Amino acid sequence: MHPLKFAVIGGDLRQVKLAQLLAADGHAVSAFAIDQARPEGAVLAASLKGAVREADCVLLPLPLMRACALNTPLSDTVLTLDEVFAALDPAQILCGGRVDEAAHRQAAEHGLTLLDYFTREELVIANAVATAEGAIQAAMEATPTILSGMRVLILGFGRIGKVLAHRLRALGMRVTVSARNYADLAWIAAYGYEGIHADALDSGLPGHDILFNTIPHRVLGAERLAALDAGTLCIDLASKPGGIDFAAAASLGVKTIWALGLPGEVAPVSAGVMIRDTIYNILADESSLKGG
Amino acid sequence: MHPLKFAVIGGDLRQVKLAQLLAADGHAVSAFAIDQARPEGAVLAASLKGAVREADCVLLPLPLMRACALNTPLSDTVLTLDEVFAALDPAQILCGGRVDEAAHRQAAEHGLTLLDYFTREELVIANAVATAEGAIQAAMEATPTILSGMRVLILGFGRIGKVLAHRLRALGMRVTVSARNYADLAWIAAYGYEGIHADALDSGLPGHDILFNTIPHRVLGAERLAALDAGTLCIDLASKPGGIDFAAAASLGVKTIWALGLPGEVAPVSAGVMIRDTIYNILADESSLKGG
Amino acid sequence: MHPLKFAVIGGDLRQVKLAQLLAADGHAVSAFAIDQARPEGAVLAASLKGAVREADCVLLPLPLMRACALNTPLSDTVLTLDEVFAALDPAQILCGGRVDEAAHRQAAEHGLTLLDYFTREELVIANAVATAEGAIQAAMEATPTILSGMRVLILGFGRIGKVLAHRLRALGMRVTVSARNYADLAWIAAYGYEGIHADALDSGLPGHDILFNTIPHRVLGAERLAALDAGTLCIDLASKPGGIDFAAAASLGVKTIWALGLPGEVAPVSAGVMIRDTIYNILADESSLKGG
Amino acid sequence: MHPLKFAVIGGDLRQVKLAQLLAADGHAVSAFAIDQARPEGAVLAASLKGAVREADCVLLPLPLMRACALNTPLSDTVLTLDEVFAALDPAQILCGGRVDEAAHRQAAEHGLTLLDYFTREELVIANAVATAEGAIQAAMEATPTILSGMRVLILGFGRIGKVLAHRLRALGMRVTVSARNYADLAWIAAYGYEGIHADALDSGLPGHDILFNTIPHRVLGAERLAALDAGTLCIDLASKPGGIDFAAAASLGVKTIWALGLPGEVAPVSAGVMIRDTIYNILADESSLKGG
Repeated sequence: MHPLKFAVIGGDLRQVKLAQLLAADGHAVSAFAIDQARPEGAVLAASLKGAVREADCVLLPLPLMRACALNTPLSDTVLTLDEVFAALDPAQILCGGRVDEAAHRQAAEHGLTLLDYFTREELVIANAVATAEGAIQAAMEATPTILSGMRVLILGFGRIGKVLAHRLRALGMRVTVSARNYADLAWIAAYGYEGIHADALDSGLPGHDILFNTIPHRVLGAERLAALDAGTLCIDLASKPGGIDFAAAASLGVKTIWALGLPGEVAPVSAGVMIRDTIYNILADESSLKGG
Repeated sequence: MHPLKFAVIGGDLRQVKLAQLLAADGHAVSAFAIDQARPEGAVLAASLKGAVREADCVLLPLPLMRACALNTPLSDTVLTLDEVFAALDPAQILCGGRVDEAAHRQAAEHGLTLLDYFTREELVIANAVATAEGAIQAAMEATPTILSGMRVLILGFGRIGKVLAHRLRALGMRVTVSARNYADLAWIAAYGYEGIHADALDSGLPGHDILFNTIPHRVLGAERLAALDAGTLCIDLASKPGGIDFAAAASLGVKTIWALGLPGEVAPVSAGVMIRDTIYNILADESSLKGG
Repeated sequence: MHPLKFAVIGGDLRQVKLAQLLAADGHAVSAFAIDQARPEGAVLAASLKGAVREADCVLLPLPLMRACALNTPLSDTVLTLDEVFAALDPAQILCGGRVDEAAHRQAAEHGLTLLDYFTREELVIANAVATAEGAIQAAMEATPTILSGMRVLILGFGRIGKVLAHRLRALGMRVTVSARNYADLAWIAAYGYEGIHADALDSGLPGHDILFNTIPHRVLGAERLAALDAGTLCIDLASKPGGIDFAAAASLGVKTIWALGLPGEVAPVSAGVMIRDTIYNILADESSLKGG
Repeated sequence: MHPLKFAVIGGDLRQVKLAQLLAADGHAVSAFAIDQARPEGAVLAASLKGAVREADCVLLPLPLMRACALNTPLSDTVLTLDEVFAALDPAQILCGGRVDEAAHRQAAEHGLTLLDYFTREELVIANAVATAEGAIQAAMEATPTILSGMRVLILGFGRIGKVLAHRLRALGMRVTVSARNYADLAWIAAYGYEGIHADALDSGLPGHDILFNTIPHRVLGAERLAALDAGTLCIDLASKPGGIDFAAAASLGVKTIWALGLPGEVAPVSAGVMIRDTIYNILADESSLKGG
């Protein structure tokens, strides 16, 4: 790729790393509203205007917003979306992460197209890999046993379930996966795991040392938690509201961990790399669209 | 499942096995137009009418048709689709494999819904597993070397590519996979294979001992075949017209194998099991639709 | 196995767990000199004499000794080996862990045979599994990246190297293993890792993100540490004196972790299970010897 | 390695390949008593004397002997060992495969040291990999099912058992391994297979689709064969007299395959490569012994 000019506005350690990586690849990078960090190779601009001037591509945080403003945990600067959008030119490529409907509309009112890099499948998959690794680390830290030889039940065979099952089996665990979809169950069989249809889950709950949930709705209520073997550790990887009734678990004495935001926590550097790669893919797609 | 009455009409060894398996599961099974085989536990009916009478579910071949008639390689009986459809009742569940648009329309004219079991994702996945195994067997048989330690290039990371890469790596091969889609490339990285973007394939062709193609269009023309290392074995798993220019390969001296229809060939019994399981899933879905 | 009488004398959390597990299996267990813990199901004896009376099998700590006395970190009781041995009967089976020559001789002077359970190959292998898991946990905790996709170099392909390579590969790492022995190199190839002969290690050091050493002598001196890529994390799993020149590493700015005693630290419960299983194997061997 | 002069005397396709490989590596190679083949790059000598003259290293067949003479299936030449040894000089390095005590003694009488390359651990391991692959191919060819999802029992966890279990699991099989040794059982657990102690094998025999035997003595007699599920396929990888009572199997209707000499049969080219690599290792060891 020939050198471009990037502006990184707001964000956390992942955006700091992103700015560094872009600079290390030979691009010109100006940054604003991440002033508590010093992204090596990037220029900290004195103003939003200065940061975005002549930028080919403007990169906003993941998630985009926090408390009705741009998400800027590494700065005291408060920026509204309108302020940011007003500073931009429709010719600039504009990207942000976890963009809601309102933000898309607001951008459109300024004549801008706001691309959500967190809807890119390749980033979601890479994120699932980081989540699976973080989940394994959490399980290792929470148990006074080795994982090897233990019996694990994974609820769901989406992206995280696939990566997790693959790695847990190689760590010597006996892996059972529950899914509702016949295609998922066919994949579970193809990889050689034990499969349970979701409708038969009730009878399949006992007999496990660790349970990972990846399904983003309340799948483990009081009744099912009570059916687990005493001592089963439950690790919930589903985002809010989560899949476990944590109050019921507490009163039943079931040990639980709610592991949220693992990629940013256990692997911020890798998360920065993943976002950089995804931005490059977006740019390649945009240029091939224009070129074609 | 409570016992049902099935009619199996036409088909090859897979349908024979299917009839046996259904009978072994306690169902009543009548068969017609597979009279050169004796499916244990099933009744060979004297007429089409007799076979389908009172059947809850009628099972047609995979593929459905051969030479404008029902596909009946194990019988001298010739049946047109119209004859078959005329014998049926709209209350009967009717399934066939690889059903084309014309056949669907013809069924509809008789007031029937013809369900294509070969469009069920779980059957397609199970079929991919059988295809991958057959491909490995073909590679073992065609080489005077062990696969362990050899360098393999897989074109495409769909169902077959995924299963094949998983198994070849465990056999000790050095696995590289080519894909166009960024999401596929993210999965390739997640499983730890080397990945090549399809646009960079030209430079990635040399350096391999075996190449498997899973992409169903002409991806390996004369120029690319000429770029392979001398002695590279090319195994094409793509259905007609295939992904390799076989004429060019022959004149260039590139060794090729076109492996078609592997599941039926290397594993007819497993293929029968897969179809049986899929039929059960179809029935469960149909009954839950009616029940709900 | 029919119920026996065990005496557990001294030791750490692993011996506490061991006592509990033996009791849970239906054996009578008396314990002494682990009085700061309460092993469920076992009887804390008031005296050494009381603990070992009528015991079929007496279990001493791992390691056996600390500061010239029996290793009793969970008790204020100080016991010399002679005191312990004087209380025992040659008909009792006597086991301890990491027994040195002097202790063996001292036991013999009392007419006793002291069996070292830590020389049993099955315990050493199980310990290697726990060490490998602990090493993976340490690597995950020490890096702001995911392991997936990183390049790892393992020095040595003994028990720990074998288990570690197997698991790291499944975590998506690119695994290279260095060994001196041609047989080890043949195994490395059989499992599909990249292999480097130890004599070629100097040129093979660059290009790695993480290095694990399993070789119990100074294999990484200043010169080799300087040859590593900047930022390579070195994790030493070798027992004292270790395989890394830590002083040189510090002055060169090479990040190191010396991970000792991982099984007891990350998985004391599993360590107790492993010792229990090994004791059972010892008893089975002893009884088949006597029986035969 | 600097170029050497090799003489290849007798042998089968593996020795032909060996001669070609040595020539391709830049060595001077003369061959004798393999005259029905034309090893590319090697010179076919007119006489034994001519072939071995000035050779640094003389390579004899694997196995060394057939019917009391040198093993020369690709030639009408009949050579006794004495004739061969009489033509050689003690300064020449002399290697053969599967050398018995008598042959060693005979060489010594001529003042020669005959090294057996088939006792080299790295060759035995590489051979085990080829045997495991051949066994998988045999299983695929002999079954009308896919291996994926089937239940396999492996008797023995030596070299072949280890490689076979690793690969069969990745092919989606449910792997159980039987072993007598506690250390082997610890390895079986470490890799996550189900383990059965050899003493409990009788009760563990039912419930499998395929059984592989790797134990070189009669482990499957009539009683055990009768305990297998109907339809279990038994593949014997043990050399003569084999581990299965084949007569009993035939009368019980148990399907058996006795797979002998797989490496030479399914992968002669790889077998040649393995021998070449082993010869190089022998030469490196010899020269370091002399050098040191």
